Amino acid sequence: MKSFLTPLALGLTPYTPGEQPKDRTYVKLNTNENPYPPSPKVFSAIQEAMDGLRLYPDPESSSLCDGIVEALHRNGHTGIGREHLFVGNGSDEVLAFAFPAFFTGKRVAFPNITYSFYPVYAQLFQTDVTLIPLDAAFQIKVEDYCNLNGGAADAEASTAGSDQIAGILIANPNAPTGCCLSLEEIRRILVANPDRLVLIDEAYVDFGGESAASMVLEFDNLLVVQTLSKSRSLAGLRAGFAIGHPALIDGLNRIKNSFNSYPMDRLAQAGARAAMLDQEYFDETCTMVIRTRERVAARLKELGFSVLPSKANFLFISHGEKPAAGLFAGLREKGVLVRYFAKPLIDNHLRVSIGTDQEMDVFLGALEELLSK
Amino acid sequence: MKSFLTPLALGLTPYTPGEQPKDRTYVKLNTNENPYPPSPKVFSAIQEAMDGLRLYPDPESSSLCDGIVEALHRNGHTGIGREHLFVGNGSDEVLAFAFPAFFTGKRVAFPNITYSFYPVYAQLFQTDVTLIPLDAAFQIKVEDYCNLNGGAADAEASTAGSDQIAGILIANPNAPTGCCLSLEEIRRILVANPDRLVLIDEAYVDFGGESAASMVLEFDNLLVVQTLSKSRSLAGLRAGFAIGHPALIDGLNRIKNSFNSYPMDRLAQAGARAAMLDQEYFDETCTMVIRTRERVAARLKELGFSVLPSKANFLFISHGEKPAAGLFAGLREKGVLVRYFAKPLIDNHLRVSIGTDQEMDVFLGALEELLSK
Repeated sequence: MKSFLTPLALGLTPYTPGEQPKDRTYVKLNTNENPYPPSPKVFSAIQEAMDGLRLYPDPESSSLCDGIVEALHRNGHTGIGREHLFVGNGSDEVLAFAFPAFFTGKRVAFPNITYSFYPVYAQLFQTDVTLIPLDAAFQIKVEDYCNLNGGAADAEASTAGSDQIAGILIANPNAPTGCCLSLEEIRRILVANPDRLVLIDEAYVDFGGESAASMVLEFDNLLVVQTLSKSRSLAGLRAGFAIGHPALIDGLNRIKNSFNSYPMDRLAQAGARAAMLDQEYFDETCTMVIRTRERVAARLKELGFSVLPSKANFLFISHGEKPAAGLFAGLREKGVLVRYFAKPLIDNHLRVSIGTDQEMDVFLGALEELLSK
Repeated sequence: MKSFLTPLALGLTPYTPGEQPKDRTYVKLNTNENPYPPSPKVFSAIQEAMDGLRLYPDPESSSLCDGIVEALHRNGHTGIGREHLFVGNGSDEVLAFAFPAFFTGKRVAFPNITYSFYPVYAQLFQTDVTLIPLDAAFQIKVEDYCNLNGGAADAEASTAGSDQIAGILIANPNAPTGCCLSLEEIRRILVANPDRLVLIDEAYVDFGGESAASMVLEFDNLLVVQTLSKSRSLAGLRAGFAIGHPALIDGLNRIKNSFNSYPMDRLAQAGARAAMLDQEYFDETCTMVIRTRERVAARLKELGFSVLPSKANFLFISHGEKPAAGLFAGLREKGVLVRYFAKPLIDNHLRVSIGTDQEMDVFLGALEELLSK
């Protein structure tokens, strides 16, 4: 049979999300969801928005943008206005749009260990990639990103496609390590790369990292991306946003308006706005996740794990004696799902999302059983 | 200031959706929304789905797919299974995905007057376009599409880019004309083009057209796209789907999974499923829209309009004496919004969505006042 697919489609290696199993109930620590439900205000906002479902949504998500601006101000990022904002159907869509807006036909650099969707976007949107290795302790080496014209990165880049690196993409905290750069380190990268777009993916920043949001007022080459899937407990509603100079926001809008006039439905706009505005609930649930993370990290170390310092809602761990693949399978059998990546460099690690204290006790108990065998 | 945008982004002419004005209340007949609210079952389904918002949605929208399959069966399209289905964040997203899946780097043919998003997708996803003129009565000439290797179309195609036409894209009913091809005509096009993907965009088919859905079982080169924005009254929820041979569905999934693992949020999946399953409500509201359309069409003819025969939830009209631009502005002033396209060939026409009987009486009254001046 003749294939009607393009060479582009046939050449893709799509992203594989963490399982959402339906066969039984698991303690689900595999996709970095928040263990706490969204703010109660989300539900009433969605309820109210249901009235308008026969009508198209606001294509510009203005009211949601205003809510995000207000939340940013409350969190110290004053000076950000609606003109610095772009919202999308999850930060995945925002990141996807960033590729044709800024990177297609060019080259982008990112860590060799990071969110595994980045290379997939690059394939779909015809972007060359330079991978910059983490150091032996899984840390981003800031100097590598400050010296892209000289070092090894350029040598690798020159082998294929466009050899100028036009963009830098860093998840901060990084995934799946949880390790975080300081704002001072981000600043050094921005200063060293005035002609490159620097995209900081802050999906996990609210669990202890520092957001670079207000630095967009100082650097026209900075785009910050955040999501409501983690710290706002709205993975099921799909909402994310970008903060940047209005010229960058224009780039994202040009792509969005050439793809889907209304990527954000009415309920998502209303619910996401309510979540952004409930600062108290946000503070409370983030604090609970952080507290649980620190307790579990301490216990894992006692059990003989090396635990990377995490500013995210997950821990990246490895055991000196028990291989990660076996622990992953053993936990699954005991009804605990964590994430295992069968990939070079990280195939002896597990990424464990932070659940409730009760869920983490089930996880720790199951782990102790597996270790004692 | 240096631009960080790609030449691709800078070269786009994004789509402009119909206004969603916030300044005052209009009788809104400009974006082909359904005048009736969605099925009451949609609200309870959304209510129920709210519980799970902290968790990612089912990336495959399985339960929604099952609902669509059931609705297709009830409407006579037996034999369609879940393997023939793909759902997306509005049919706009489904259409957008179809371009990189089937057309990027190739050439696609569509009518010179049709949904004005098609050329925008083609730009974003680097697809060459051959425009096939409608006839003088705004009808698609089926023979033009059955003879793409010989006629004028190929002469035009050979001027730039890839000269082989790899795909055909037809809105049926067409927009903004409302005119419809019969299944026999669609079949002729399919038979004449076994090596070309034929995409039939059936956004408006439920208002009197015949769907080609079950023909996907016979033709592996047919992809049918539908939306819940019109006949299911869910423009604000964003849901659409494609029906085709599993190999074509695989093409769409390859793109979707390289773009956004979860484009359909939990509420959209649940609400859309409920809408698909309420056959009685669907039949009733479609019948009401059709009845109103026929009444209004008859009255417009009495008022001196030429009215194209419509199988959609809108009418495409032109007056012998009063220019459309003036009527558009006059109606707007009187609080009635219709759609006017300042484009060659159709710049003396108005596209008028079918509202409730009461709304259409306001529209007709305003029109009569403008005509009597």
